[in-house]
Amino acid sequence: MYENIRYSLNNLKNNKLFELAVVTVIIISALEIGAKTFSLPDGAMSFTNILDVFITVFFLFEISIRFIADEDKKSFFKKGWNIFDTLVVAVSLIPINDSEMALLARLVRVFRVLRMVSVVPELRVLINSLIKALPQLGYVILLMFIIFYIYAAFGSFIFKDINPELWGDIAISMLTLFRIMTFEDWTDIQYETMEVYPMSWIFYLTFIFFTAFAFLNMVIGIVVNVMEDEHAKVRQEKEAADNNPTIEDLHKEIQELKQLIKEQGKG
Amino acid sequence: MYENIRYSLNNLKNNKLFELAVVTVIIISALEIGAKTFSLPDGAMSFTNILDVFITVFFLFEISIRFIADEDKKSFFKKGWNIFDTLVVAVSLIPINDSEMALLARLVRVFRVLRMVSVVPELRVLINSLIKALPQLGYVILLMFIIFYIYAAFGSFIFKDINPELWGDIAISMLTLFRIMTFEDWTDIQYETMEVYPMSWIFYLTFIFFTAFAFLNMVIGIVVNVMEDEHAKVRQEKEAADNNPTIEDLHKEIQELKQLIKEQGKG
Amino acid sequence: MYENIRYSLNNLKNNKLFELAVVTVIIISALEIGAKTFSLPDGAMSFTNILDVFITVFFLFEISIRFIADEDKKSFFKKGWNIFDTLVVAVSLIPINDSEMALLARLVRVFRVLRMVSVVPELRVLINSLIKALPQLGYVILLMFIIFYIYAAFGSFIFKDINPELWGDIAISMLTLFRIMTFEDWTDIQYETMEVYPMSWIFYLTFIFFTAFAFLNMVIGIVVNVMEDEHAKVRQEKEAADNNPTIEDLHKEIQELKQLIKEQGKG
Amino acid sequence: MYENIRYSLNNLKNNKLFELAVVTVIIISALEIGAKTFSLPDGAMSFTNILDVFITVFFLFEISIRFIADEDKKSFFKKGWNIFDTLVVAVSLIPINDSEMALLARLVRVFRVLRMVSVVPELRVLINSLIKALPQLGYVILLMFIIFYIYAAFGSFIFKDINPELWGDIAISMLTLFRIMTFEDWTDIQYETMEVYPMSWIFYLTFIFFTAFAFLNMVIGIVVNVMEDEHAKVRQEKEAADNNPTIEDLHKEIQELKQLIKEQGKG
Repeated sequence: MYENIRYSLNNLKNNKLFELAVVTVIIISALEIGAKTFSLPDGAMSFTNILDVFITVFFLFEISIRFIADEDKKSFFKKGWNIFDTLVVAVSLIPINDSEMALLARLVRVFRVLRMVSVVPELRVLINSLIKALPQLGYVILLMFIIFYIYAAFGSFIFKDINPELWGDIAISMLTLFRIMTFEDWTDIQYETMEVYPMSWIFYLTFIFFTAFAFLNMVIGIVVNVMEDEHAKVRQEKEAADNNPTIEDLHKEIQELKQLIKEQGKG
Repeated sequence: MYENIRYSLNNLKNNKLFELAVVTVIIISALEIGAKTFSLPDGAMSFTNILDVFITVFFLFEISIRFIADEDKKSFFKKGWNIFDTLVVAVSLIPINDSEMALLARLVRVFRVLRMVSVVPELRVLINSLIKALPQLGYVILLMFIIFYIYAAFGSFIFKDINPELWGDIAISMLTLFRIMTFEDWTDIQYETMEVYPMSWIFYLTFIFFTAFAFLNMVIGIVVNVMEDEHAKVRQEKEAADNNPTIEDLHKEIQELKQLIKEQGKG
Repeated sequence: MYENIRYSLNNLKNNKLFELAVVTVIIISALEIGAKTFSLPDGAMSFTNILDVFITVFFLFEISIRFIADEDKKSFFKKGWNIFDTLVVAVSLIPINDSEMALLARLVRVFRVLRMVSVVPELRVLINSLIKALPQLGYVILLMFIIFYIYAAFGSFIFKDINPELWGDIAISMLTLFRIMTFEDWTDIQYETMEVYPMSWIFYLTFIFFTAFAFLNMVIGIVVNVMEDEHAKVRQEKEAADNNPTIEDLHKEIQELKQLIKEQGKG
Repeated sequence: MYENIRYSLNNLKNNKLFELAVVTVIIISALEIGAKTFSLPDGAMSFTNILDVFITVFFLFEISIRFIADEDKKSFFKKGWNIFDTLVVAVSLIPINDSEMALLARLVRVFRVLRMVSVVPELRVLINSLIKALPQLGYVILLMFIIFYIYAAFGSFIFKDINPELWGDIAISMLTLFRIMTFEDWTDIQYETMEVYPMSWIFYLTFIFFTAFAFLNMVIGIVVNVMEDEHAKVRQEKEAADNNPTIEDLHKEIQELKQLIKEQGKG
């Protein structure tokens, strides 16, 4: 009997209409979150509270169906997206009496919008490819961090007394350097230190060059990786499609031909 | 007799001189629109009014020729560019008595400049390729919208009281986030919120990283797509040019050879 | 006798030491121009005047040698770089009595630095490749100009009264739009117009999207072009290097083989 | 006996645990440098002094081991990274009595963080590839410098009296131009000079176009180089993997076949 339920729930799960319903509820949930940021009349406020309960129940219902419908219960929680979905639903279930917790509850509910990614396969693929690219870039990010760290140390040693708000300690300095990397009012910082140390433009110019160059390298790294993956895919597809004779096949055939002629020569 | 008119109009339409005349009138129309933005003496003002009538009549005349000359009247309005041209001309024909409508009429007339795109084939190709690239990017744009939406919700929940002009509701917050993405005075916003929440730099840095990364992915997506199209084109051209024997041809020939030798062996 | 002179001048022209001398004088000329921007003592001032005469004479001397040494006098002035060099030298020769012309004379002398490009072959190649890329990009630039023109017309029609310094006429508006494209304080402009037209953010966002997209397209266009050129070059080199047998050669040989076997079968 | 020591030190050098210890000490050294930028209590201050001595001794110890363990003493100092490591250690050994030198000593110690790069092979590869790319870009950088120099000369000749802080001499002007290239408040500079010379926007727009175009060319240059290297690598790998018969092999075999048939024909 359990198998029957599992089977019918699985049918429900794969039903196009059910998928549409899930996406719709997520969109409603997103709109509700957005609506709450506006100052609403009291009536609308109590409506969103009711809506909130409905969304929580629907998500709980949906994740239960997905869990029961799954054949292999153990591997269900090995998939990152399932864990994420369950967490989002679970946190929504915690009752909030305390008014101080209200903000936190609101913030957690925002993550419901991310469920869009877990539900739409194309978005899941995009996110997965982003995550896959990260470790390849690990060493470039480490290198950039070292550049930031060294310049931040220099900056806070030399410029600390000029403007402690920008160069007070190594942490603040790194934030300031990030600001310089985005070119945001970086010349104001430069002119300020140049009044004390006229040669300090060297500090800024070399920093911009190094980070720009490292960043460029990172981008090219990604592009080359993506290209190679594409080429590899194309090549594989081509080989799979090829039942066409290869040069190697020709080689074998010529060998056979030779053998044939030799045999006939004898015969 | 109708066929004769159609035939001679078709000749006119494809006449180089006629095409040149159309382009010239569009350029005059563009210059007139530009001239109107300057404060002109009364004489020039009434001249532009006459010019306006002439341009409207010319465009009406041209689109009529193109419509009559077309063999297949039904498919004429299936082409986007034809609809666009007709709309631009049609709106120009509406008489404006009301002075309030004058500004709107002016604005609509600006779209005449876009007729340049519909008339010059190379520009039409460019625009078409841009439009064609859009759906491929659809999911990346959706992902970016979700990132914006989540950060905007967070932003307006947490920072609303700090600066309602920037974080008042989710719509204003999204505009503020777009500003942050363009690095426009983003540190002013950051410093303001860091006075209340010292850790809020995490909000800005992660947002910049996510959007930059997603944007990068988008660009690479386009590049790879364009490259693949180019490669496919090159491959097709190559295959079309190839009446050269392929490895498969060699394979067949060697088979024939084998057959020949066998037959001779018997003979 | 003239031939002898031509021959020995040609030798001089191709002499490594002479080339080095020319580059050295150009660098001295550049340093002199740079030095003049500082406030110099009187002694140094009169020294630069003497240096100026020397450089002018040297350049005149050099271009004369290049002209006399050239075999084909007619084609000498067909090369863009030769015209440029001659013009720079010729303008330096015009005597300046008028003190008002002094600034202009200085400005013209700045172009001497560009002679570096005409003398160093690697830089000449770079500039030529830039010039070669321009016409390919012509239509993208035209498209971008049309986008700018339409938005500038809209801008000066709608926003003129809000801030005439930014949106006064179509020319000023185009400059303002270029500023917006570089993201330079663009939100100040946006907030100003949003006070009157709250929906005017649409104007800015669509403009940024269109120009960013067109620019992206332009960049990709260049990349694809450069790549294709590279591929074509690689292919050509490969084919030139190939005296290796091709599939076509194999095809012919198998045909001969067939013929041979047939003949033997008869014999 | 010396050989025994060398041998055991070499073992130590290649020991995973020893490598880990070196990386750990470098990280501690980096943290210490970072900690010094904060205002520390006296106790922590004297602790960092002791830590400093320990790190210096450890680095001296490590570089000695690496030197003694090296078979070929002469080539040890031919490797850039070894020279860098030795310099960093040697400078740390200089005793500082003078309080004025204290800042300098601190700054030199910051370079210890860079030892991370010399120790982690993956980072070394990254830096080497950056250095390798530089000469290829040499001429583009030279071209950009010439563009900067010419515009800076023009700028300081024309705009000097408008704002000597931005256009005072050629050096300041080049810094201002770099600021314009990063789009940092460049319109402020433009509006200022446009009040005196209304056409000076041409100066800024052409400069931005030229530098953007040159920069773009530079980036594309790197991308194409990297791509070509990748393709060459792929090709080499493919050829190395190929013991597969080539078209040339087929050619030879068919020749042999012909010979065979001819011989049989005679026999």
